[in-house]
Amino acid sequence: MLSVDLNSDLGESYGLYKIGNDKEVLQHITSANVACGYHAGDHNVMMETVKMAAAYGVKIGAHPGFPDLHGFGRREMKLDAGEIYNLTVYQIGALTAAAKVCGTKVAHVKPHGALYNMAVKDKTVAEAIAQAVADVDSSLVLFGLANSWLVKAGKEKGLIVAREVFADRTYQADGSLTPRSQANAMIHDADVAIKRVIRMVKEAKVEAIDGTVIDIKADTICIHGDEPQALDFAVKLKTALSAEGIKVGKGWDTR
Amino acid sequence: MLSVDLNSDLGESYGLYKIGNDKEVLQHITSANVACGYHAGDHNVMMETVKMAAAYGVKIGAHPGFPDLHGFGRREMKLDAGEIYNLTVYQIGALTAAAKVCGTKVAHVKPHGALYNMAVKDKTVAEAIAQAVADVDSSLVLFGLANSWLVKAGKEKGLIVAREVFADRTYQADGSLTPRSQANAMIHDADVAIKRVIRMVKEAKVEAIDGTVIDIKADTICIHGDEPQALDFAVKLKTALSAEGIKVGKGWDTR
Amino acid sequence: MLSVDLNSDLGESYGLYKIGNDKEVLQHITSANVACGYHAGDHNVMMETVKMAAAYGVKIGAHPGFPDLHGFGRREMKLDAGEIYNLTVYQIGALTAAAKVCGTKVAHVKPHGALYNMAVKDKTVAEAIAQAVADVDSSLVLFGLANSWLVKAGKEKGLIVAREVFADRTYQADGSLTPRSQANAMIHDADVAIKRVIRMVKEAKVEAIDGTVIDIKADTICIHGDEPQALDFAVKLKTALSAEGIKVGKGWDTR
Amino acid sequence: MLSVDLNSDLGESYGLYKIGNDKEVLQHITSANVACGYHAGDHNVMMETVKMAAAYGVKIGAHPGFPDLHGFGRREMKLDAGEIYNLTVYQIGALTAAAKVCGTKVAHVKPHGALYNMAVKDKTVAEAIAQAVADVDSSLVLFGLANSWLVKAGKEKGLIVAREVFADRTYQADGSLTPRSQANAMIHDADVAIKRVIRMVKEAKVEAIDGTVIDIKADTICIHGDEPQALDFAVKLKTALSAEGIKVGKGWDTR
Repeated sequence: MLSVDLNSDLGESYGLYKIGNDKEVLQHITSANVACGYHAGDHNVMMETVKMAAAYGVKIGAHPGFPDLHGFGRREMKLDAGEIYNLTVYQIGALTAAAKVCGTKVAHVKPHGALYNMAVKDKTVAEAIAQAVADVDSSLVLFGLANSWLVKAGKEKGLIVAREVFADRTYQADGSLTPRSQANAMIHDADVAIKRVIRMVKEAKVEAIDGTVIDIKADTICIHGDEPQALDFAVKLKTALSAEGIKVGKGWDTR
Repeated sequence: MLSVDLNSDLGESYGLYKIGNDKEVLQHITSANVACGYHAGDHNVMMETVKMAAAYGVKIGAHPGFPDLHGFGRREMKLDAGEIYNLTVYQIGALTAAAKVCGTKVAHVKPHGALYNMAVKDKTVAEAIAQAVADVDSSLVLFGLANSWLVKAGKEKGLIVAREVFADRTYQADGSLTPRSQANAMIHDADVAIKRVIRMVKEAKVEAIDGTVIDIKADTICIHGDEPQALDFAVKLKTALSAEGIKVGKGWDTR
Repeated sequence: MLSVDLNSDLGESYGLYKIGNDKEVLQHITSANVACGYHAGDHNVMMETVKMAAAYGVKIGAHPGFPDLHGFGRREMKLDAGEIYNLTVYQIGALTAAAKVCGTKVAHVKPHGALYNMAVKDKTVAEAIAQAVADVDSSLVLFGLANSWLVKAGKEKGLIVAREVFADRTYQADGSLTPRSQANAMIHDADVAIKRVIRMVKEAKVEAIDGTVIDIKADTICIHGDEPQALDFAVKLKTALSAEGIKVGKGWDTR
Repeated sequence: MLSVDLNSDLGESYGLYKIGNDKEVLQHITSANVACGYHAGDHNVMMETVKMAAAYGVKIGAHPGFPDLHGFGRREMKLDAGEIYNLTVYQIGALTAAAKVCGTKVAHVKPHGALYNMAVKDKTVAEAIAQAVADVDSSLVLFGLANSWLVKAGKEKGLIVAREVFADRTYQADGSLTPRSQANAMIHDADVAIKRVIRMVKEAKVEAIDGTVIDIKADTICIHGDEPQALDFAVKLKTALSAEGIKVGKGWDTR
């Protein structure tokens, strides 16, 4: 039976500052990417998020980012490979301990924001992250953009990888996401978005903006949690997946 | 055969800022307390320190502190027990992953600065730290001031504890350190200091400032690493311990 | 004609993290206390807040706090007087430049959170703050809790002071606020709160929790901006003040 | 009479972390660029540095940098022009207040590290900094690399600019510094370096690495303060300048 994972970024509050509707989102996803105190989150928020995710039966992943709370990890930082390796190790380790004391464990790693985006195109960054994950725990699943360097690097290091696709984004002929700066980057029609997701899951194909049909594996779909309509979309998507006989759950086991 | 551990705080550099003579100090100690990126240290410094300690065959410990780089973790912060538990878990976890990717492991935990001092007298703080250590890994040795609440809490949680003594500090009749604000807080004569240490190790006794002889177990001795004379003292101390037939190494196993 | 100032804490967002309804609140107050990047706020938020306040004709004040974003400046930090002086100077300076480039100026200073509370009871802290304000610009009005050390210190340094009262809090016989830990600390009935405020403004008296009537000058009233009902209260309060012939505006000039 | 300014970066310590020999350096320079708490420095270090500089009769400048203590402001951050403007205003303001309470004033602004380097080649960054300086205080002198966009932007905004040259660096035919990654970037021979400086001051010319003689105005020379030989060089340079009849002091007034 076909299946696909739904993931979302959680635990991004900090001190008194609240972001996201974590409790709501957890009812719609199967993998939670938990911020680890660098780009967002703190030791208290992490612990609370891990507990909540465990309570909802959602898998827990480390969501390491750049040490940049002010920029929310969305600003590129040119760090050498050694530092990217080290900061990835650090953040996975911190969450691993939080998971352990909550009686659960970290199942995957998905880099955040600028770190994620740099790992799409920059082989060195991708390899540093993949090596860090492999060295900390080779049973961790590495989440990366489908067709990215991160996915390649993960496979080379012997990791199970989950190829992530975006329901609300268009793709270019080379398999990369259309940059948000371009007019046709976003898909605003939920029905169109859902049809594309179903094709990606069933056929491993998607139509790029120039009409080319490209190969794309969809192991996990990113669900945005910060806006009410995002959750409406998640509900609609799950209904559609179910109607197509696609199970929502671990997407990378069946491949 | 009697034995006693020598420990020192290491890995306290941060970015371009350098503190301490870690490489020198590692040649004189048996346990390294590695800063975990809160009061000092960063992901790069941690990794480098773990590698160096492993190369010198020195045991690695987590040295969690308050999230206060500017105050170097020496300023009291009134955090609730839950937060102290969480920040201890976080920091042990981060170092655990660094140790793992370096092919070694964390052996002990010693809280830093104000957190250490608060755990001497504040039962709630002591219990939060001890519980965190026990929950993350109950095989970790907990370092705390001899006769402190932290040592008591550690024992109650079932942990192996290492009672720490200070060669250059005087004690009060109740077993606590004489506050540095008092004139007779420090022992400046190295020979006097060494005699006291040897008595603590052999007889588990020390003379307090009022002449009372109090009970004190010395499992590990704190070596200050930031000044040249500190290392001279370490050398002198090791020679004296050897002459007394006291082995330098794990101090808590033999009790 | 009697008059009283209404002040509120603004500009407390940070990066992507949003707190408060600054735009709404600015329509109801006469003095804005702008966070200066230590306990909250950042260089972007400050600039935007200063512009908005100026656009609404609201006076701008520096709202210096402890360097503690994670604790939102609400955790006591035991800093020496020199450091409190320095951090107050720093934060006033930063806001002064922001005001200048926006074509306006800083009119007052109100310490934030734990710094404010420590300056109520701790003479040393109060004097360090007052001296910093006097040295940076002796024309700045210093906001402090009525009957606090901060108000005394401000007067001694030759500053104009604005004595702040809280509409929703009860007072003890010694003039201090009843701690929030006590059951009778808060006044939940808006009508009662408003009557008390009017008496404070007109008679400079308030009834303490033990029935004693104490002296209290009300130059400025703190308006909480973070909850919808707070603004409803502000509207109700302004209507009541107007009905009593009390002008809302600079409260400290008329005394 | 010809004259040239000698400047150095100071006040870069942070909390317990010490960097630089500020006291020594102040005896050899005429302009001190004081870190403002973003890439280095803190409110205590700033105050102490301003006091020391004033005591030695050295002019005080703001040295704004990126908000990146861990990277010491040396890592490029892609911030929009608005944010660069805001962070420049913030940091100048903070130092201005420190100077005021010390009875002195800020005389110049020199951006730090990556911000300085970006302002060499990036017109938008250069204009944001120059506009911020002009808006905070149009009498401030703006320090920028000779032949950089920053110098051009400063002039366009009506500021007095000081063109900075480096004694120990080579130049390319287009007037830019040879990148450190190239073998011939540095000049290691002090006598050669001094001859080049003297030619720059007297003739406003320097020989580029390809033999071309390019135009370069030298209003101020950067003195590195962190290594002992740097100060030896400063002494030697001053002697040579004196022998050539070049005064050490304000370099930009005479042009």
